[in-house]
Amino acid sequence: MNYEHIFDQAIERLHSEGRYRVFIDILRNKGAYPNARCFHGHNGPKTITVWCSNDYLAMGQHPKVIAAMEEALHNVGAGSGGTRNIGGNTHYHIELEQELADLHGKQSALLFTSGYVSNDATLSTLAKLLPGCVIFSDELNHASMIAGIRNSGCEKRVWRHNDMQHLEELLAAEDPSVPKLVAFESVYSMDGDVAPIHAICDLAEKYNALTYIDEVHAVGMYGARGGGISERDEAAHRIDIIEGTMGKAFGVMGGYIAADSKIIDCIRSYAPGFIFTTSLSPVLVAGVLASVKHLKSSSLERDGQQAAAATLKQMFADAGLPVMDTTTHIVPLMVGDPVRAKKISDILLAEYGVYVQPINFPTVPRGTERLRFTPGPTHSEEMMRDLTSALLEIWDRLDLELKQAA
Amino acid sequence: MNYEHIFDQAIERLHSEGRYRVFIDILRNKGAYPNARCFHGHNGPKTITVWCSNDYLAMGQHPKVIAAMEEALHNVGAGSGGTRNIGGNTHYHIELEQELADLHGKQSALLFTSGYVSNDATLSTLAKLLPGCVIFSDELNHASMIAGIRNSGCEKRVWRHNDMQHLEELLAAEDPSVPKLVAFESVYSMDGDVAPIHAICDLAEKYNALTYIDEVHAVGMYGARGGGISERDEAAHRIDIIEGTMGKAFGVMGGYIAADSKIIDCIRSYAPGFIFTTSLSPVLVAGVLASVKHLKSSSLERDGQQAAAATLKQMFADAGLPVMDTTTHIVPLMVGDPVRAKKISDILLAEYGVYVQPINFPTVPRGTERLRFTPGPTHSEEMMRDLTSALLEIWDRLDLELKQAA
Ligand SMILES: Cc1ncc(COP(=O)(O)O)c(C=O)c1O
Ligand SMILES: Cc1ncc(COP(=O)(O)O)c(C=O)c1O
Repeated sequence: MNYEHIFDQAIERLHSEGRYRVFIDILRNKGAYPNARCFHGHNGPKTITVWCSNDYLAMGQHPKVIAAMEEALHNVGAGSGGTRNIGGNTHYHIELEQELADLHGKQSALLFTSGYVSNDATLSTLAKLLPGCVIFSDELNHASMIAGIRNSGCEKRVWRHNDMQHLEELLAAEDPSVPKLVAFESVYSMDGDVAPIHAICDLAEKYNALTYIDEVHAVGMYGARGGGISERDEAAHRIDIIEGTMGKAFGVMGGYIAADSKIIDCIRSYAPGFIFTTSLSPVLVAGVLASVKHLKSSSLERDGQQAAAATLKQMFADAGLPVMDTTTHIVPLMVGDPVRAKKISDILLAEYGVYVQPINFPTVPRGTERLRFTPGPTHSEEMMRDLTSALLEIWDRLDLELKQAA
Repeated sequence: MNYEHIFDQAIERLHSEGRYRVFIDILRNKGAYPNARCFHGHNGPKTITVWCSNDYLAMGQHPKVIAAMEEALHNVGAGSGGTRNIGGNTHYHIELEQELADLHGKQSALLFTSGYVSNDATLSTLAKLLPGCVIFSDELNHASMIAGIRNSGCEKRVWRHNDMQHLEELLAAEDPSVPKLVAFESVYSMDGDVAPIHAICDLAEKYNALTYIDEVHAVGMYGARGGGISERDEAAHRIDIIEGTMGKAFGVMGGYIAADSKIIDCIRSYAPGFIFTTSLSPVLVAGVLASVKHLKSSSLERDGQQAAAATLKQMFADAGLPVMDTTTHIVPLMVGDPVRAKKISDILLAEYGVYVQPINFPTVPRGTERLRFTPGPTHSEEMMRDLTSALLEIWDRLDLELKQAA
C-alpha cells in the first residue's frame, strides 16, 4: 500500500486531461467593482476586470450591506460562538429567517452555512424522514443536490433535462403509495436556461410528489421583490421547498430553505448538517439582511444586470462568437475543449487584464467546456466592446471558428 | 401518502422524548463578553451571562480581529462572489492557508466553509481516492466525521473510545494490503478527555494506516503556538491530516485541513464539498488571519482560560456538584435525563440570568444528558461563585443528589 503513489496518480489524471485547476489570486477593489487586483504569477498586483463573479448585482459592495456588517461587527463581534442550539442563535438569524420566509411567501425559513450545505442537508434528511422515498432529479442538477440525494441513500430517478414527458414516464412507473420528491433548479447556471416550473408542479400534483427547487442563481435576480423565478412565474405557492444562497445575488455568504413551518421544524431538528456546526457569523447575517431588504424594494440592480447581459449577448452574437442561446442573465461562450478554454482564459488575463475562468469538467460535461461571462450593472458598454474585440483577436490567433461573418 | 402526517409524527417523537429543541434568542455585547442580551419569550431584552459559548478565548471580540475584519470589509467588500476556482480565490484565502500550514508544521492547508464541511468533504473524498479503503473510527467521533465516513461509502470499523487494544484488534484483523485510515479527535468536547495520539500513531505505523485528527476543540487552545494537542504532545509530524475549525477558539467561522501538499492538492481537486460552493467571505478570512497570528505569539488567553476552567471545576467539586472528571478546559455537569437538564437550564436563565444550554441526544448518548460549561478568560471568580450557589439552590429545589456534603 503506497499512499503517496495513489495521490500522485490522482493528480496526474487531472494534468493529463488538461483540467488541473490553478486558482487565480485576486482582491476586488471595493467601490470600483468589477475592478480587482490580481497577484503573483501574474507579475505582481495588477488591475483586472472581473467577468465571472456570481456577485451578480454587486451587492457585496453595496453601502447598505457594508454598513450593516460594520454595525454588527461592532455590536456583537466576529463569530456566533456556537451551533444554533448552543449559544449561536442570535437575533440576526431569527430576523433573517423571517425576512426570507416573507420573500418567498412561506411560513418559515432556515439558514445554513452555505447553499451547498442547504441542498445536501435538506435533501438527505428529507428523504430519510420519508421511508421508501424516491427522488426524481433533473439530469443537470447541481453537485450539491446530487450529494444530498446520494447521501440520503434513497432511490433516485434522473429525468432528461427539462423533459416533462420523461419526468411523467418516470413518475407514472412508480408505486403510487411511496413518497416522492421532485428536485430541480430554476435557473441552470452553466447553460442559462430555465425550468418549466408550472409544468413540473402539475406533474408533482398529479402523482402526489413533494417539490424542491434550487433558486440559487435566481434569488435576488427575478421577480418583483427578488423572490426568484418562482415569484416571477407566480409559482412559489406550488413549491414545497425553495432553496437559495446568500453568496451570489445577495453578495455575502450562506444558504437557506423556505417552506411550511412543519417541514422547517423537521429539518431544523433532524439534519446533522444544520445541527452540528457553528452558525453563520452574525456579521454575515446582518449583511444579508440589508441586502435582501434592499432588493425587495429596488429593481434598479436587477434591471441594470438584465440590460448588461442582453447587450453583451448581442455584441457576441453580432461578432459571430459562439454565444450559447440563453433566456437568462448568464452569457456562456462554448469552446468545447478544456485545453483551448484555458488557453483563451490565460491570454485574456495576461494580455487584456480580463478575468474569466474556464469552466471544465466536472462543473460541465466533458466536451462542453466553455467561458462563462456574468456582466453586472457596473460593467460598462466600453468594457463590453473591449472584451468583444479581445475575444475576436484571440479567436483569430488560435484559428477558432466564428459562427458568421463578424 | 400523507406527507404532513409524517412530518407531524417526526416532531411528536421529539416532544415525547423531552428533546424538542427551543433556540434561545441572544445577542452578545461586544467588549463586555461573556455578557449578552436575551430576547423575547424571556420578557424582552435582558442581560445574561453566557456560560456555553465555544468562543473559548473571546477572540470573537478581540480588537485585532475586529479591526482586521473591518479593514477587509472596506478593502474588498462583503463576499467572495464565487467558488475558489471561479472568482472566489482571494489573497486573504491564500495567506490564511499558509498561516495554518505553518501553525501545524505542514506543507499546505485548505479552507472550507466550516469544520463540519472540512470533515465531511475530506473524509468522504479521501476514502473514495483510496480504493477498498477501510476507515477506523473512535466511537465518540463527531457527527461531521461520521457523516464523511458514511458518505464515503467505504467499510468502517468503530473502536471503543480511546481503547488502544480494541483499535489494534481491529487493525490486525484487516487485510494488510488494503488502504486504511484511522480517524479520531484530540479533545472530545462533550466529555473533555483527550486521545492518546502517540499510541494511536504507533498502531497506525505498525499497520500502515493514514491518520486523521479532528483538533476542532484544541486549535488555538493547546500547544505553545495554539497548534492543538498534536503540538503540545509533539505529535503533529506523525499525523497525516490535521483538521480544525475557525469558529471556536479562533472566534470567527470556517474550517480547514493541514497536510502534505499532495494530499491537499487531491482534496482541493476532487472534493465536491470544497469545489462547488462559494468560498469563505474575505471578511471572515481576514478576521481568522488576525486571530491565528495573535494566538501564535500570545499565551495569555490560553492560560487565562485554563485557569478559569480549573477554578470552576474545583468550585463545583467542592460544592458536591456532579462535575465530570476532565483533563481539559471543558466543565460538564452530569444530569443524566433530558427533562431535568432542560429544567435546570430554564431556571438558570429565567431566575439567574445564566445561559447554559442543556446537551441532549443526539449530541450525547441518551441517559448522559448534561450541562456543559465553558468558562473563559473573562469569566470572573465572582461570576463563578454566583453560578455555583445558583446551581446548589436549584439542586436543592429539584431534590437532586450532591456527591458529597457541600
Ligand atoms: C445551482 C447551485 N446550487 C447550489 C450552489 C451552492 O451554493 P453556495 O455557493 O452558497 O454553497 C451553487 C453554487 O455554488 C449552485 O450553482
Ligand atoms: C469535534 C467537532 N468537529 C467538528 C465540528 C464542526 O465544526 P464547525 O462548527 O466549524 O462546523 C464540531 C462542532 O461544531 C465539533 O465539535
